[in-house]
Amino acid sequence: MSAKTRPATSATPATTRANAPAPFDLPEFLAASTAAVNAALDHFLPRATTKPATIHKAMRYSLFAGGKRLRPALCFAAAAACGGTAAAALPLACAVECIHTYSLIHDDLPAMDNDDYRRGKLTNHKVFGEGIAILAGDALLTQAFEIAAQAEGWPRYSHRDLILEIAEASGSLQLIAGQVADLEGEGKKTSAAQLKYIHERKTSALLCCSARLGGMSANCTPAQLQALTDFGYHVGLAFQVIDDILDVTQTSEQLGKTAGKDLTAQKATYPRIIGLDKSRKIAKQLTAKAFAALQPFHGRAAALEALAHYLLERNK
Amino acid sequence: MSAKTRPATSATPATTRANAPAPFDLPEFLAASTAAVNAALDHFLPRATTKPATIHKAMRYSLFAGGKRLRPALCFAAAAACGGTAAAALPLACAVECIHTYSLIHDDLPAMDNDDYRRGKLTNHKVFGEGIAILAGDALLTQAFEIAAQAEGWPRYSHRDLILEIAEASGSLQLIAGQVADLEGEGKKTSAAQLKYIHERKTSALLCCSARLGGMSANCTPAQLQALTDFGYHVGLAFQVIDDILDVTQTSEQLGKTAGKDLTAQKATYPRIIGLDKSRKIAKQLTAKAFAALQPFHGRAAALEALAHYLLERNK
Repeated sequence: MSAKTRPATSATPATTRANAPAPFDLPEFLAASTAAVNAALDHFLPRATTKPATIHKAMRYSLFAGGKRLRPALCFAAAAACGGTAAAALPLACAVECIHTYSLIHDDLPAMDNDDYRRGKLTNHKVFGEGIAILAGDALLTQAFEIAAQAEGWPRYSHRDLILEIAEASGSLQLIAGQVADLEGEGKKTSAAQLKYIHERKTSALLCCSARLGGMSANCTPAQLQALTDFGYHVGLAFQVIDDILDVTQTSEQLGKTAGKDLTAQKATYPRIIGLDKSRKIAKQLTAKAFAALQPFHGRAAALEALAHYLLERNK
Repeated sequence: MSAKTRPATSATPATTRANAPAPFDLPEFLAASTAAVNAALDHFLPRATTKPATIHKAMRYSLFAGGKRLRPALCFAAAAACGGTAAAALPLACAVECIHTYSLIHDDLPAMDNDDYRRGKLTNHKVFGEGIAILAGDALLTQAFEIAAQAEGWPRYSHRDLILEIAEASGSLQLIAGQVADLEGEGKKTSAAQLKYIHERKTSALLCCSARLGGMSANCTPAQLQALTDFGYHVGLAFQVIDDILDVTQTSEQLGKTAGKDLTAQKATYPRIIGLDKSRKIAKQLTAKAFAALQPFHGRAAALEALAHYLLERNK
C-alpha cells in the first residue's frame, strides 16, 4: 500500500474547541482524537497481509495494542490552542505515536527492560521473537518519518523543520539518551538530578515534541511555540513522576503491566529516591508550571488544560 | 553539538569528473569520496564524549569501522553524471551511510545473524552489549533523517521527496523486508526467486536509493532518475551475488569477517542454490545491464561505470 496519500477523516477533535465556553468535554475529545489517529495509522501502515506479513503483523500488534494515544491528543490539543485543525495535525500525531510505539518495543526487549507484558498484552518479542521485534521497532521508526513527510508545509514551518523536530526529540541526545541513562543506572545509586535527566529525555522530549508539532501544524507564532515547549516539558516530567508513583501504588491488573517492576529491577524512580509524598508534591508542582505556561493562549487552550488535569489525576 | 549547519569540505570528488576524457581514476575518486563523507559524518555526529558518551562511542565505533563507503561513492558518482556537485550530495551520502551502518549493527545481533566480527573488528554488541547496540542502531537510523533534512531542496525535488526516498528504501517493504525474509529463510529451502526477493530488498534498495539521491541532489531530469534507478537496481543485485560468491571462495582474513558463515548458517545464497559458475555468470549479466542503463548519460557517467567495474572485480 502506498503511504503517499493522506487519509480523509471525519473526526475533527481539534476544531471548534477553542472557543467553547466550558466545561471542556475531555472524554469526547480523547475518543475523537483516538478514533482519528487510529484510522489514519491504519491507512498509513501496510496491511497485515502485505509481504513480508510477519513484520506488518508485528508493527500493527504493538501499534494497536490499546495505547492511550496521549501524544496524538497533545498534538491535536496544541493545534486547537493555536487555531489549527486536526486534519493538518493528523500526520504528525501519527508520526509521534509510531516513534512512541517503536521505543516501547525496543525498551521491552530482554537486552533492555526485559518486560513480558505491556498494556495487558504480551510484549512484541514474546509474541514474534526478538529478531522480528527489533525489526518491527526499526520499521515503525522509519515509518514515522515517512508519515511526517506527508504533512503539509506551512509558511513558518517547512518539512525540514518538521523532520528535524522529530529526529532531535527521538535522537541520541533526547529519547535514546534517556533510555541509555536508564539502562546504565539500573542497580546503581541514582541522584535526583540524574533521574530528572532521564525523565526529561525519556518522556518529556517526545511529549514536548508532540505539542510543538501540533502548534507548527497550526502555523503558530514563535511565542506560541515557546509556550507549548514549556507546557510539554512540564507535563512530560509530571507524567513520568506519576508513572513512577503508579508503579508502586497500583496492582499489575490495574496497570496492565507488571507493577513494582521498577523496584524489583532496582531502577531509579522518584518514590525510591525522594519518597512517595514528595513525589506527589513534585507532580503537582510540575502540573502547575504546565498550566502557567498556557497563559499566552488567554483561555483558548481548554483541551491542553483538560489533558494536564487528566494526567495528574489518572490512576493507570 | 548542533547538527544544523552543513560542513564545508575541500574534497569535491564528484565535480569536474564528467568531462575528463579517460581513463577514470577510480582510486582517487574513492579516496576523495571517503574523505569527504568521513569528515562530514564526523561533523554531523555528536562527539564521542557528549553525554551519554556510551551511545555516541557506540555509534561512532561502527560508523568509523572502515566501511567501504560504497553508497556515498554511488551517490557522488550519480550526482556527477547529472552535472551536480559533491557538496550538494554530501548530506544525502552521509544519510545513506548512517542507514547502512544501523542495518549492519542490528543484523549482527544475536537475535538476527549473530555475528562476532564485521570488517575485521568485533561487532557493536560484542563491544558495547546488546542493549547499547540496539540503541546505537536506532540512533543512527534517526540521525540519517536529521542529516538528510540538512540537504538543500532543489527545484524538482523537495525535502519531502528526499525523506520519502530514504524512508521507503529503508522501510518494511524494502530494506527491512529483506532482512525479515532472510531471517525467516534460514534453515529452509529457498528458491532462486525468493533469494532474488531478499537481495532486491536487503541490498539493491539502498544502493538504488543512493544513486537516486545523488541524481536528485543534481536536480536531475525524470529520464536521468529512471536511468539511475535501473543502474542502482542491477548494480545492487550484482553486488550481493558477488558478496555471496566471496563468502564461499575467500578466507575470513581476506574478507575481514567470518567466511563461510552463510553456508554454516544454512543461509540462502546464490552459490548454494545455483552453483558458483552460474552465480559468476549472473553477476556479469547484471553488471552488463547496469552499464546498459547508463546510455542516457552519453559517456558522462565515467564514475558510475568505473564503480560498476570495480564491484564486479573486487575480491573482498
